[in-house]
Amino acid sequence: MATALYPGTFDPVTNGHLDILQRASRVFERVVVSASEASHKTCAFSLEERLSLLRTVAGQLPNVEVMPFKGLVVECARQVGAGIIVRGLRQTTDFDYEFAMATMNTRLAPDIETLFLVASSQYHFLSSSLVREIAALGGDISQFVPPEVEDAIISKLK
Amino acid sequence: MATALYPGTFDPVTNGHLDILQRASRVFERVVVSASEASHKTCAFSLEERLSLLRTVAGQLPNVEVMPFKGLVVECARQVGAGIIVRGLRQTTDFDYEFAMATMNTRLAPDIETLFLVASSQYHFLSSSLVREIAALGGDISQFVPPEVEDAIISKLK
Amino acid sequence: MATALYPGTFDPVTNGHLDILQRASRVFERVVVSASEASHKTCAFSLEERLSLLRTVAGQLPNVEVMPFKGLVVECARQVGAGIIVRGLRQTTDFDYEFAMATMNTRLAPDIETLFLVASSQYHFLSSSLVREIAALGGDISQFVPPEVEDAIISKLK
Amino acid sequence: MATALYPGTFDPVTNGHLDILQRASRVFERVVVSASEASHKTCAFSLEERLSLLRTVAGQLPNVEVMPFKGLVVECARQVGAGIIVRGLRQTTDFDYEFAMATMNTRLAPDIETLFLVASSQYHFLSSSLVREIAALGGDISQFVPPEVEDAIISKLK
Amino acid sequence: MATALYPGTFDPVTNGHLDILQRASRVFERVVVSASEASHKTCAFSLEERLSLLRTVAGQLPNVEVMPFKGLVVECARQVGAGIIVRGLRQTTDFDYEFAMATMNTRLAPDIETLFLVASSQYHFLSSSLVREIAALGGDISQFVPPEVEDAIISKLK
Amino acid sequence: MATALYPGTFDPVTNGHLDILQRASRVFERVVVSASEASHKTCAFSLEERLSLLRTVAGQLPNVEVMPFKGLVVECARQVGAGIIVRGLRQTTDFDYEFAMATMNTRLAPDIETLFLVASSQYHFLSSSLVREIAALGGDISQFVPPEVEDAIISKLK
Repeated sequence: MATALYPGTFDPVTNGHLDILQRASRVFERVVVSASEASHKTCAFSLEERLSLLRTVAGQLPNVEVMPFKGLVVECARQVGAGIIVRGLRQTTDFDYEFAMATMNTRLAPDIETLFLVASSQYHFLSSSLVREIAALGGDISQFVPPEVEDAIISKLK
Repeated sequence: MATALYPGTFDPVTNGHLDILQRASRVFERVVVSASEASHKTCAFSLEERLSLLRTVAGQLPNVEVMPFKGLVVECARQVGAGIIVRGLRQTTDFDYEFAMATMNTRLAPDIETLFLVASSQYHFLSSSLVREIAALGGDISQFVPPEVEDAIISKLK
Repeated sequence: MATALYPGTFDPVTNGHLDILQRASRVFERVVVSASEASHKTCAFSLEERLSLLRTVAGQLPNVEVMPFKGLVVECARQVGAGIIVRGLRQTTDFDYEFAMATMNTRLAPDIETLFLVASSQYHFLSSSLVREIAALGGDISQFVPPEVEDAIISKLK
Repeated sequence: MATALYPGTFDPVTNGHLDILQRASRVFERVVVSASEASHKTCAFSLEERLSLLRTVAGQLPNVEVMPFKGLVVECARQVGAGIIVRGLRQTTDFDYEFAMATMNTRLAPDIETLFLVASSQYHFLSSSLVREIAALGGDISQFVPPEVEDAIISKLK
Repeated sequence: MATALYPGTFDPVTNGHLDILQRASRVFERVVVSASEASHKTCAFSLEERLSLLRTVAGQLPNVEVMPFKGLVVECARQVGAGIIVRGLRQTTDFDYEFAMATMNTRLAPDIETLFLVASSQYHFLSSSLVREIAALGGDISQFVPPEVEDAIISKLK
Repeated sequence: MATALYPGTFDPVTNGHLDILQRASRVFERVVVSASEASHKTCAFSLEERLSLLRTVAGQLPNVEVMPFKGLVVECARQVGAGIIVRGLRQTTDFDYEFAMATMNTRLAPDIETLFLVASSQYHFLSSSLVREIAALGGDISQFVPPEVEDAIISKLK
């Protein structure tokens, strides 16, 4: 039960991601949060920026490590010694996609389990893209992301 | 209970939009229908074309005004003095996205309420993109959009 | 835009119902909240108890009236002079049932519109039956219902 | 990371439940599978029968214990020293109910997390009630439940 | 491609059922519409009444036969020589239940296929239970069911 | 009941498509499987490549023909003499889109029916895009597509 992998795009990390991460870090001995290179979709932030923001806001969690990943999620899990993949479910999650991915990953690596956590109700509506959209339209995003992330989004928009 | 804002992309306006608009205009004293600049997605029609078609087909409704909007929907609502945002729900609506937006807008502007109307059953399947797709494939769209909009779509396709 | 009807079972009224009611009372000039006789499903509280709790917790809202209803919702709306039916949507709402009812009601009474409000995120999971279930199992329900309702549920369970 | 609680009705246990249980037993050090008294819905099998079948079919899993529970799931989790509640998600799961329960349980006991596993694809359609319904109509259920459970269902139907 | 079975409860048959039946009768050489004994749920109409109404309203379709069924749907299909089961999908259909049943039936009888037709948009909201509920509340159901069925419902309510 | 059209993008054909095709070929006298030119979305494989793979893997089915289509699906159906359009439903299908298309097609061509088959449970999670994504990340796709398609994907990726 040592290690869980929390993979994602984190473009950028929001308070919703942090909620999942904090709860996962209480349940598992070690959590590796891993931002993907995401070659198949265009990100607003570079991989290095996304990792840097993750490190800044997840730095206070003692059993959390931040790293990039490339390739299959199940391969990444194996490389970091994780038998578990953790994913958060929000109201706006595409459940079918998540379940298809979980099923596909079980086919590819039967020894690795995907476990889902439900986002806290105040974050059920929150996504990185919605936050970026609101910021782009001049809205106040301070209640949705940590201050460092807010600064990064505002800088990025200029 | 004076004014409601009916925001959208209207690319282009369909009979389904008109159904929502007519019903909203019976419920509210004044309805401002507002086409967004939609910087984040590419429209088939320019903002000016979309507004022009809206004005043509909504011209007979006495308490309806057409205008563009830019920025946050809640800011637009404030500018036109609307305490209400109206949205139509179709069978093919992405409910979770709509509810996330409504929740987000309540966070950003607790004084503005989002109210949803359910599309009439004959329009439950109708969307601007489906109409454009059918027209592009040579299908007859006369039962889905007003004549002026049909002409505009056919002209655009040439 | 005078009057809206907010119909329901309210078995019993929860903080989620109150949230919808308060927001409706800010949007509409007059709101009639109406508990149904609900002959087709068994209620935990009698109609008189449900109305009494509604009156107790909604008493501070100046433009809200509480009354029972019997028969079709659209007939009730007509009797109280309401051109609008208000319903709340929660994450756990059976959307399809709500939309079927709204569509059916439009067929039966084209002059009456159903408008939906999305529940605030902290109430997205809340329902009368879930509250009764938790109370029956000995759980603390004080964060989900007003104090008077909590007392009524606990008394009922004895 | 010692103990997880896997609560349910198990009326009766199916191959789908066993799949979740086996996978949970590989992930967690100790799994307590717990059949509820289910006062609020009528079961086909008595609590004692349901527990007996669970013990029979889960007997080969070394780190799994079977026990009844009564009252709130979170109280049961505390009593057995479980910081985690495990639930399986099938295609036919009422996701919204599961997420409402998970959210409610987090409100009642913030120290206990609910984790979801997705059922293997061959069990996505399987439920106790569907199995009982097929057996009652004379269908062959041997591919859906362990032999002991098949015998118990057939005996029960006589 | 000779025969299709259209099974259901038909409690009572509505215009929505007739729409599916008429369309199925144009696609398949022979359609057997079959009302179940439905031991597991209480019907408003007896099996004989439901069959009688089906015969009355489907009598004009030359290649349609009405009969009762008991037991597994796939056994019924075999008995009438049907290699196809036809089901209608409405907006308010419980898709997951339908797909679970279709999958289960494929497991039990791989030689029989379930095919789904989408209800016409004007019937997307229609169900027997909704019609009965409206009639019980005194509403006009003449646009939802054939005249003979309307009479039968009104007689039944007295 | 002669001919059914099975239209799609098939970018590329997977074991899930083959499952639907095989089952359709047992139900209908003649099945025309038809890959669209798909001008509105970018394909990984050219139309000729997609048709070639379809021909390779569907070659053993005697009553199946492969052909391209362009324009409206209902026009294609008419051209090949098909009164039926067949579509597969997976767990990850966008049901609402499928139902909107079926409804729209019924409006455009009331004489052509759309019939849905549910994918076998082992293919419920499978899609061309997921297979391409896994292959691009270096995963083993041999259990998801026929060998010829696996080779084609791997060649394409180089």
